[in-house]
Amino acid sequence: MESVIRDPSLAPEGHRKIEWAAAHSPVLAAVRERYLKDGTFEDLGVAVALPVEAKTAYLAVVLAEVGARVSVAAPLPSVVQDDVAAALAERGVAVFANSEGSPEDADRWMELALEAATSAGEAVLIDDRAGLTRIAHTTRRRLLAHLRGASEETTSGVVRLRAMEAEGVLEFPVLAANDARCKHLFDNRYGTGQSTLTALMQSTNLMLGGKRVVVLGYGWCGKGIARYAAGLGARVTVCEVDPVRGLEAYADGFDVLPALEAAGVGEVFITATGNLHVLGEEHFGRMRDGAILANAGGVDVEIDVSWLRATAEEVYEVRRHVEEFVMPDGRRLRLVGGGMVVNLTAGDGHPVEIMDLTFAIQALCAHHLANRAASMEAGLHPLPPELDEEVARLKLEAVGMGVDSLTEEQRRFLAGWRE
Amino acid sequence: MESVIRDPSLAPEGHRKIEWAAAHSPVLAAVRERYLKDGTFEDLGVAVALPVEAKTAYLAVVLAEVGARVSVAAPLPSVVQDDVAAALAERGVAVFANSEGSPEDADRWMELALEAATSAGEAVLIDDRAGLTRIAHTTRRRLLAHLRGASEETTSGVVRLRAMEAEGVLEFPVLAANDARCKHLFDNRYGTGQSTLTALMQSTNLMLGGKRVVVLGYGWCGKGIARYAAGLGARVTVCEVDPVRGLEAYADGFDVLPALEAAGVGEVFITATGNLHVLGEEHFGRMRDGAILANAGGVDVEIDVSWLRATAEEVYEVRRHVEEFVMPDGRRLRLVGGGMVVNLTAGDGHPVEIMDLTFAIQALCAHHLANRAASMEAGLHPLPPELDEEVARLKLEAVGMGVDSLTEEQRRFLAGWRE
Amino acid sequence: MESVIRDPSLAPEGHRKIEWAAAHSPVLAAVRERYLKDGTFEDLGVAVALPVEAKTAYLAVVLAEVGARVSVAAPLPSVVQDDVAAALAERGVAVFANSEGSPEDADRWMELALEAATSAGEAVLIDDRAGLTRIAHTTRRRLLAHLRGASEETTSGVVRLRAMEAEGVLEFPVLAANDARCKHLFDNRYGTGQSTLTALMQSTNLMLGGKRVVVLGYGWCGKGIARYAAGLGARVTVCEVDPVRGLEAYADGFDVLPALEAAGVGEVFITATGNLHVLGEEHFGRMRDGAILANAGGVDVEIDVSWLRATAEEVYEVRRHVEEFVMPDGRRLRLVGGGMVVNLTAGDGHPVEIMDLTFAIQALCAHHLANRAASMEAGLHPLPPELDEEVARLKLEAVGMGVDSLTEEQRRFLAGWRE
Amino acid sequence: MESVIRDPSLAPEGHRKIEWAAAHSPVLAAVRERYLKDGTFEDLGVAVALPVEAKTAYLAVVLAEVGARVSVAAPLPSVVQDDVAAALAERGVAVFANSEGSPEDADRWMELALEAATSAGEAVLIDDRAGLTRIAHTTRRRLLAHLRGASEETTSGVVRLRAMEAEGVLEFPVLAANDARCKHLFDNRYGTGQSTLTALMQSTNLMLGGKRVVVLGYGWCGKGIARYAAGLGARVTVCEVDPVRGLEAYADGFDVLPALEAAGVGEVFITATGNLHVLGEEHFGRMRDGAILANAGGVDVEIDVSWLRATAEEVYEVRRHVEEFVMPDGRRLRLVGGGMVVNLTAGDGHPVEIMDLTFAIQALCAHHLANRAASMEAGLHPLPPELDEEVARLKLEAVGMGVDSLTEEQRRFLAGWRE
Repeated sequence: MESVIRDPSLAPEGHRKIEWAAAHSPVLAAVRERYLKDGTFEDLGVAVALPVEAKTAYLAVVLAEVGARVSVAAPLPSVVQDDVAAALAERGVAVFANSEGSPEDADRWMELALEAATSAGEAVLIDDRAGLTRIAHTTRRRLLAHLRGASEETTSGVVRLRAMEAEGVLEFPVLAANDARCKHLFDNRYGTGQSTLTALMQSTNLMLGGKRVVVLGYGWCGKGIARYAAGLGARVTVCEVDPVRGLEAYADGFDVLPALEAAGVGEVFITATGNLHVLGEEHFGRMRDGAILANAGGVDVEIDVSWLRATAEEVYEVRRHVEEFVMPDGRRLRLVGGGMVVNLTAGDGHPVEIMDLTFAIQALCAHHLANRAASMEAGLHPLPPELDEEVARLKLEAVGMGVDSLTEEQRRFLAGWRE
Repeated sequence: MESVIRDPSLAPEGHRKIEWAAAHSPVLAAVRERYLKDGTFEDLGVAVALPVEAKTAYLAVVLAEVGARVSVAAPLPSVVQDDVAAALAERGVAVFANSEGSPEDADRWMELALEAATSAGEAVLIDDRAGLTRIAHTTRRRLLAHLRGASEETTSGVVRLRAMEAEGVLEFPVLAANDARCKHLFDNRYGTGQSTLTALMQSTNLMLGGKRVVVLGYGWCGKGIARYAAGLGARVTVCEVDPVRGLEAYADGFDVLPALEAAGVGEVFITATGNLHVLGEEHFGRMRDGAILANAGGVDVEIDVSWLRATAEEVYEVRRHVEEFVMPDGRRLRLVGGGMVVNLTAGDGHPVEIMDLTFAIQALCAHHLANRAASMEAGLHPLPPELDEEVARLKLEAVGMGVDSLTEEQRRFLAGWRE
Repeated sequence: MESVIRDPSLAPEGHRKIEWAAAHSPVLAAVRERYLKDGTFEDLGVAVALPVEAKTAYLAVVLAEVGARVSVAAPLPSVVQDDVAAALAERGVAVFANSEGSPEDADRWMELALEAATSAGEAVLIDDRAGLTRIAHTTRRRLLAHLRGASEETTSGVVRLRAMEAEGVLEFPVLAANDARCKHLFDNRYGTGQSTLTALMQSTNLMLGGKRVVVLGYGWCGKGIARYAAGLGARVTVCEVDPVRGLEAYADGFDVLPALEAAGVGEVFITATGNLHVLGEEHFGRMRDGAILANAGGVDVEIDVSWLRATAEEVYEVRRHVEEFVMPDGRRLRLVGGGMVVNLTAGDGHPVEIMDLTFAIQALCAHHLANRAASMEAGLHPLPPELDEEVARLKLEAVGMGVDSLTEEQRRFLAGWRE
Repeated sequence: MESVIRDPSLAPEGHRKIEWAAAHSPVLAAVRERYLKDGTFEDLGVAVALPVEAKTAYLAVVLAEVGARVSVAAPLPSVVQDDVAAALAERGVAVFANSEGSPEDADRWMELALEAATSAGEAVLIDDRAGLTRIAHTTRRRLLAHLRGASEETTSGVVRLRAMEAEGVLEFPVLAANDARCKHLFDNRYGTGQSTLTALMQSTNLMLGGKRVVVLGYGWCGKGIARYAAGLGARVTVCEVDPVRGLEAYADGFDVLPALEAAGVGEVFITATGNLHVLGEEHFGRMRDGAILANAGGVDVEIDVSWLRATAEEVYEVRRHVEEFVMPDGRRLRLVGGGMVVNLTAGDGHPVEIMDLTFAIQALCAHHLANRAASMEAGLHPLPPELDEEVARLKLEAVGMGVDSLTEEQRRFLAGWRE
């Protein structure tokens, strides 16, 4: 099936970016050598829905190298780098991704990716916010029979899949790759943490030291953002709905306030909740002139941007990736990255090394599904812990570090209780 | 039943300490007002096995105040403050705890506490490292019928209880209080972290800045110790058996090495694994002259002190709580707190505010067991999450902070998947 | 005099950037209102040699607004943003700056700026690495009589001026603006720290957590870099020539090693010494494959890039701002920003708020020189401390904070000694 | 002259403490070997006024070992450890120090120490808060002729000596040992920082994580306290009179408020200003119930304890070293360490390694004065920088680290200005 991309001539720059990603992906490389080359992927379809940038591209390349029929769809036009899409198409992957498309196009791309992957046999899915899974259960139900299962990348996706499972409508097994410890402990915390703040600093050229930064949500993403913001000298306020997480934030040295109270004191606001309208009309009304807003969470509706656009007297770009909304009362609110996930729209996404871990997990998930899906029930499944540990072990090896094993005596000690 | 304590005349100092603990326990006080006063504890026995110091004592006092027949046993003589024991006895609690007892006495004390609590009816247990539970299942099986269940305080205890459950020998329901988020996220991390380093600094008068500190174990305890040690300027090396935790330590900025390699580079070693002989003959053999050793974990055998005592040419106290072992090759190893849990033997245990959380949880566990044990199966149970959240909410209130609630719209959003 | 710029049509983007800088420069705005508008600058020339980007531009604009005849020269083509240069020219400033010029052009630009500033009377200089001062003392000595004095922005410049003073060749008074506490404590530490790491992260997309980062130089710049790198999870090694600074780095929790030893262990190297060839042939020879190199110091020769270029078998760009040098033995070294000051060549320079402080100081220095130079001796002078304090006070006011004053009783206490 | 101490029988415990200090003083040991043994001290008097604890004692022992006639006076009874005093007396040092003495006794002790040191010839002074120097210029002026000079240990002392110099009454040369970089950068920052917080934590058993800690003064002491408090999870507010320091605190991520505003928000207050009545009636009036107060500064009047004692309705000890003051309105304020320097009165003073640096400096100062005082003018002098650097070099060597030297090429580069 022919790729849908913006401009094939951008491929050279895309290849260079993919090479950089490859050079910093020792774990995925080791996984390929030790696990993926066993023939599992020969002639198997793999449909991938993920932001189209260098690191995802390298995962697709690796899967293609071990024999898979790979198709890639962008879940949103805003997360497409056209040069990378072009390079990927040149390497024999079916690509459906164009940064100038509309959000509606994305559903169409995912449909095409599902069709491409199942065009000559069965397929497994590597999914983002359950997009491919949703399409397969709605507008492309006829393909369901060809899909062995899916592996889900995001927290938001897992939430949705649990909702599907609860409704009894999920028809194939899904591995919660997101819940792999090597994924959520690293990607959501260190990855989102570093890349969100980098995107903010490069977009605004503002200093973090001394700034009052409000982090909404203290899950792994919020924890990472708060910690690095503090590491760069910011004064951090956390907003939460879970009181135990709120208490952790307090013990970590942060102020913990209801969002409406925080709205009045913050200079920078970063949402990381996976929920909608965490910042909305009421909050905007209390913010000080010049407040900076950005979203680091998995859904694009955490900040109620529609309300902002509808209400502002004027909106213009004040720096690349930074829009200024002039409120009727004259205050100016500044939105970075359009309210979409800021480390992708105003940055290069997670650091390479983080994605190396994540995609090593994803590759092992796809491998596991390809071999075992037949014996797995429909529904959400965790990744077998030994695979999780293997990825961590490979990474520690790659950086010259290592862990111990329990001695037999210690194992017995842990198993006993009579002292 | 008459208390077994060292010296009743020490009571005044003990009362003063208990008052200090009470003054810093707003959460337990709020729990007492809102939950414990409902008559549940009237004439119910509560046997408590916990270190006997001011904060535990205040828990016992609160339970007695709401009508319980409370008995307290020290699980080890090394964790008894005699003044507190004396004060507690004066307040009508049956106390079995004497800092000058032998480890064998401790089993006897726990037997006495079980008998006292069941002397006039049924009882629930608040347990430490499953000590009371072990006694009840071995030398005091005849009391089993009077025990509604137990609440377990420690990670080590939960490990043991799982072993008992796996063997099918656990005969009453146990609430894993340790696994309450308000317990293990705070007590093990912030509590052990701060108090272990305080004990080390006050015992040794050494500077942490620049020191190479080796933390063995990167569970919640180890994480807290490593983080505060780094916060005080130490260069931290972590040893682990779980590669994913090892990788977290790496991403947190620490060196991660097998323990034998770390043995050669460390200046200070702190064990926090809950396992035995984490530091033993082989490690001692590689340590540099002057190395400092301490145990922060729940079991007293993490450092192989027996081997040290048997092997050293000379052992003498160089500062209060610090013993110097002169090895046959002339190197001197310095052990703080005798290898027992250092924040208790060479310090005052966890900070008061931490124990306030923990004991609020314990009080609610006891309350829950007292009311519901009849309908619970034998085996380990988690604390109902709403109680956990209530404790966190009460604490945030006490410090003037607060969290949000989900709006109806947000609740629906999280439950949906069709976008 | 006509401006020398690349493309006047770039002005709109430049104006937008300058507006952003203006919006975040409350201190310079306050200084303008309270001090600069007193007529001092009417018809006075001010020649400015500074990187041509939004924040510098705003300083030039402010000086022009209060009546000065302002000319701006870039000290190097690599630090010119052409859109800002165009916007500045449109606002009536004489600009000599073109990013596509050669390093030789820069001397010519500075000559032109000196001539423009003195074309209709006397002038003061705002200088960068003593560039204008050097030109005035060599190829444009005839202008010396028209120059009241200079204010110097950089540490490297102050070092050079001291050398000139020591040789007895400095012929006008210079204020060491760099040594103002509001300058060097903030600009060199927080400004260079944050912006250097931001530039590195956005250029390389690499993760700092766990990385072994070698910081060469532990002056204010190096301290800032080391601290923020650690705040982002890096493991930091410091190299120094001053043992007391080395010892500070040790107490701050960093490894301290001679540069040749550090060369073998580092993954990322950042120079911040103000000296030449801090990383050279010997160091390159010991580095691991894939090592990343960047310079954050004031001089472009800290990393011996000439040797790298002459020796590498191949050099190509692997990402924007990142060149890969393939060594004869196959190892690849990656240079960010060409060895020039990385936060300018691969980033947007210091955060706006930092430059607001710095340029408030510079504006006050120019004001001071304009009024007092006649009574000052040739040579280096410090800024009067009360001006330094005034800038800090204005900034604290702007962020809603404040300090105390000594009471009369306290003043007396500090002045007494008889107890 | 006979020593004035509390109880000679306490000596054994004192010897043990001194041995511990000796074992952790590699720098002073190296200085003794390389510098002090040259005969300079033979038959020279050295009068030392310093807190009498193990580390000071070891300095006195070292000086005695190289031939000096050493006398030691405590500048205050509150800083005397009687066991150390006894041990020192046994080792042939004249000791005037008794923890049960009155503040008035201290002046008498210093007089005795001056007399003992000059009893058989000339002497140099090692002074604390200029105590010996004050006595020598007032009640013991007749000894002035025998005193070659003094070395001053504290910031407060240097302030006083400057006052004396300004009045023209200082009659011998004084080396500002406090201003040695190896002294004030380490002792005041890391030493006071760690030991103050350790003393607070062990005295109160309170958790720092989440606490609002107000640090009054952001000099080196305050900086160290603030940084470690933040490292332990506290939320820090800083009060200052110098706006530039205030601005540093802001950029470091702390709130900066006038003390009266901070009084209303703090939970823990630590003074470190060297000034009087930094916390007084007005501040106490605004504090919340249960506020904790401690002084880490060099003078005992930073907290207006006299007012507290005069005003409180009740005062009693609630824990060792913690007094509770019940205010007329019922609020309770808790003072740790009596308002005297808390790391000495409620702790063991600075960490050993810090004092090793400080006393290596002091020993070199005494050595320098002994040899050069004749050619030095009366007044304050800095320590020659090469001695400062030598101490740092010896310390880095002792911990296995090291620094570089400038190459000849680099030295030339720094000296040039013509590019």
